[in-house]
Amino acid sequence: MGGYELRQRIRAGEFNGQTSGQCPGYQQANVVILPASSADDFLRYCVSNPKPCPILAVGEPGQAKLTQLGHDVDIRRDIPAYRVFRHGEAVASCDNIMDLWQSDFVAFVLGCSFSFEAALQRAGITIGHIAAQRNVPMYITQIPTQAAGSFSGPLVVSMRAFNPAQAIRAIVLSERYPHAHGAPVHIGDPTAIGIADIHQPDFGDPPVLQDGDIAVFWACGVTPQLALRQAAPALAITHQPGHMLITDLPTDGTIT
Amino acid sequence: MGGYELRQRIRAGEFNGQTSGQCPGYQQANVVILPASSADDFLRYCVSNPKPCPILAVGEPGQAKLTQLGHDVDIRRDIPAYRVFRHGEAVASCDNIMDLWQSDFVAFVLGCSFSFEAALQRAGITIGHIAAQRNVPMYITQIPTQAAGSFSGPLVVSMRAFNPAQAIRAIVLSERYPHAHGAPVHIGDPTAIGIADIHQPDFGDPPVLQDGDIAVFWACGVTPQLALRQAAPALAITHQPGHMLITDLPTDGTIT
Repeated sequence: MGGYELRQRIRAGEFNGQTSGQCPGYQQANVVILPASSADDFLRYCVSNPKPCPILAVGEPGQAKLTQLGHDVDIRRDIPAYRVFRHGEAVASCDNIMDLWQSDFVAFVLGCSFSFEAALQRAGITIGHIAAQRNVPMYITQIPTQAAGSFSGPLVVSMRAFNPAQAIRAIVLSERYPHAHGAPVHIGDPTAIGIADIHQPDFGDPPVLQDGDIAVFWACGVTPQLALRQAAPALAITHQPGHMLITDLPTDGTIT
Repeated sequence: MGGYELRQRIRAGEFNGQTSGQCPGYQQANVVILPASSADDFLRYCVSNPKPCPILAVGEPGQAKLTQLGHDVDIRRDIPAYRVFRHGEAVASCDNIMDLWQSDFVAFVLGCSFSFEAALQRAGITIGHIAAQRNVPMYITQIPTQAAGSFSGPLVVSMRAFNPAQAIRAIVLSERYPHAHGAPVHIGDPTAIGIADIHQPDFGDPPVLQDGDIAVFWACGVTPQLALRQAAPALAITHQPGHMLITDLPTDGTIT
């Protein structure tokens, strides 16, 4: 059943927290909802930037039930918390978007890093920020994404640090999860990709770094939120960071 | 036909050079030949240390023709140059071992890094020492191998340096070639594995290093030669470094 039970609790207003660690073995996802007028450009943006924006599903205009992702999935009310953007600015949070839903809305569901993090943990690799009960540190880089229409902006990366042997293993394992951002985009010196101070992330919590660790940087699902600010459509809705859509897709399954 | 033609030229005394770049697409191999009295220990040593000693084939005692590796392969005369070890010391070189062959000799054929180097090159990754027409730098580390009988000693690694994005790709690609040493054993700081000065390798040529490069270290087929010196059997024969056995096995094929 995957996330069905938790989605039902979310729908009933009984759960509105972060989803990290919930429903292990099932893919969690980033969500971006846009009016059809912006959706074509955003689809091209995702396809052109598959590492930060791996597409799990795209709805038809007006399609609120995305049953290809799980039993009875309703994109309007099965996510613990939503963010509402008007003209590129986050203006509100809410726990469902039933009243905001429009018949021309297109839902984009994008993979997230939880899938490969679970694979690392199964391999016995400790993930610093999880062990320290912190959010993953995220950084805006100087690497540009490929622009599509009005969508553009820098690549955002998440960082996890490991000893060298575990860093090698983390690279190999994450590469097997292209729908969870795949292999890293950078390792080692953070300044090489425009990160001035690794201890001061742009999003999330400061990193957990130990002597001899190598910093490993993955493309991050926050990237499209910056592109959304750049494109500034009249209305857009996303999940609240960390409050993901839990699907019924096994993390080790194939997206078809 | 793979390496058949080149092996015939070697057998006829018409080729005795290094084999790097020869017969692209076919696996090249390290060779260790030991009397049966040492062979059991050495087999356990290889099986216990699969990253430096990936076994492609082991002959029966006295078996000189290893046709599982290619058409008419004769381990006594199809290698461009041999080294003869007595009591652990290299005492002679020769271009065939027909006169030295004993009915109790066991031939071990171990994978080499050329297979994954070819995969990196197909992926558009420049390998510094090849571009500079140098031998790969190799280093004795402080990482011990697993001992087996009298065979023991430190892990030897080869080093290739890449920019971070190519280092990530090199890790992912090499992991797909477990019979060519597989994924690296270390990345980054050489002193963490006991290499005092990366510019002074123990074997091969000084490295090609560029600003911003990350050093990537793979287990190396020279490791068993150090174990051979440690075990010091009365007689042993190997290929001359760089002068490999060329098989008919495709580098992207499966060892069965």
